[in-house]
Amino acid sequence: MSTPSEQSAVTVLGLGPMGRCLARAFLDAGLRTTVWNRTPGRDRELVERGATGAPSAGEAVAASPLTVVCVVNYDAADAVLRSDAVTDAAKGRTVVNLSADTPDRARSTADWAARHGIRYLDGAIMTPTTTIGTPAAVFLHSGPAELYREHRPVLHALGGTHTHLSEEIGRAAAYDIALLDIFWTAMTGFAHALAVARAEGVTARELAPFAQGISAILPPIFGQYAQALDDGDFSGEDNPLTSAASSMAHIVHTSEAHGIDAGVMRAAGELARRAVADGHGTDGFVRVAELLGRA
Amino acid sequence: MSTPSEQSAVTVLGLGPMGRCLARAFLDAGLRTTVWNRTPGRDRELVERGATGAPSAGEAVAASPLTVVCVVNYDAADAVLRSDAVTDAAKGRTVVNLSADTPDRARSTADWAARHGIRYLDGAIMTPTTTIGTPAAVFLHSGPAELYREHRPVLHALGGTHTHLSEEIGRAAAYDIALLDIFWTAMTGFAHALAVARAEGVTARELAPFAQGISAILPPIFGQYAQALDDGDFSGEDNPLTSAASSMAHIVHTSEAHGIDAGVMRAAGELARRAVADGHGTDGFVRVAELLGRA
Repeated sequence: MSTPSEQSAVTVLGLGPMGRCLARAFLDAGLRTTVWNRTPGRDRELVERGATGAPSAGEAVAASPLTVVCVVNYDAADAVLRSDAVTDAAKGRTVVNLSADTPDRARSTADWAARHGIRYLDGAIMTPTTTIGTPAAVFLHSGPAELYREHRPVLHALGGTHTHLSEEIGRAAAYDIALLDIFWTAMTGFAHALAVARAEGVTARELAPFAQGISAILPPIFGQYAQALDDGDFSGEDNPLTSAASSMAHIVHTSEAHGIDAGVMRAAGELARRAVADGHGTDGFVRVAELLGRA
Repeated sequence: MSTPSEQSAVTVLGLGPMGRCLARAFLDAGLRTTVWNRTPGRDRELVERGATGAPSAGEAVAASPLTVVCVVNYDAADAVLRSDAVTDAAKGRTVVNLSADTPDRARSTADWAARHGIRYLDGAIMTPTTTIGTPAAVFLHSGPAELYREHRPVLHALGGTHTHLSEEIGRAAAYDIALLDIFWTAMTGFAHALAVARAEGVTARELAPFAQGISAILPPIFGQYAQALDDGDFSGEDNPLTSAASSMAHIVHTSEAHGIDAGVMRAAGELARRAVADGHGTDGFVRVAELLGRA
């Protein structure tokens, strides 16, 4: 694996919590790092660590062959990138957009970049700020493979695992959406479980080790269900959809008996009931994925 | 730890997939095991292994000091237990109900048992059938601690970890509900993510390792959030609710752009938006648990 030379330079646009961690990791790896943020003053600690604080986004982009953008979403990214000064400065250079948004927005940004002779990669950061610069960080990339290979040494300075998923520019955002779908749905289930447990006299600390135990059984089930869906094998074996629907109804009942909103579980139960009503009662829960995808 | 003596006898009522696994584990541990199922013929393999197939539920209960009930829910359990023959046979004996239902139903069954001089424990099985008889099984129990201690040697023949949670008879069902809340919500998020990924050209097998990676970050977050909720510490630090709400909106948008039902994520996003609207935008996601519990 190649490593960034001491001559390597990188620019970071956006110094929110994640952007600051990215800039810090680049500095720690010995890269000449230029930083910029719309709201001034966010670069102080980074400048003390050796970063160059650019007076404008255009000057920041002009300072390095590679600019990493990390802002709240693509509305914010567009507001920075699509100004004349930045568009001019980025011409012939590479922009890696690590902001989170939808695959559509990634494709639209790639179109804009192509129209202006800007080399463009899209990416997603799948782990919290605290992982940046450590082996636990997970980065997904999409766009031209050759462009990715060219900048890989600098990107690897961010630590962790980097996967180039596809030349299709929207792919990293598609994974990001799917993985955050799992994450935020599970987090909502956990928040709801904490509320129901409390209403039953169980503290969050009491429930936590069991909640951790339940979440630890998810990865092997995810593996089995993924295989089943790809293979079109919907057999329910010992866990038919009718059981899932019954279990979900118990949760809704207990929750609402305590006056706790059960909208999420109601919507989830509705999917299971719809599958049962469609004649899939003896199928496994993976049938719900197939049913959702029929749209 | 004491072990079941060779004289120990146990009855299993309900021979669905889980009930059969329980009976098999008792037989493997050398207990005299009597079995019964409403629909006949389910006991064949167990009888071949040495179980006694009872001709009626009453005779099954009369055969052992301890009866384990494992049927689909408490409607089914009541239909078996609350017949005159079974109620009479159970008098002075112990019934452990491992069927899944709500805390209310556990309390109601305990009341019925008390009225008829039946010693009653309630429990929940938190792991799949394949874990029964192995160290991976997880059982939760509630009810009189002394009664639990008396029957612990027989119950331990089922393998795995057994936790007596509380004398409060509904406690095992409360944990069951809360933990299944997490499980089924997460599974629904996973099924939805698979559908969205497919629509974006990503197979389930391609997404699976990353989905497993995302679920692996849940246990430490669950631990932190549980502590935060009990301590009333709602600080958002690097992950404010506004970010969660924005991320959830991206998921709804991408999903619906592919014609995929996003009802679950809409309901989840609504909780986050409600918390933001209530002035908690800079709080962490754990605020949602507090908000749900205010009801």
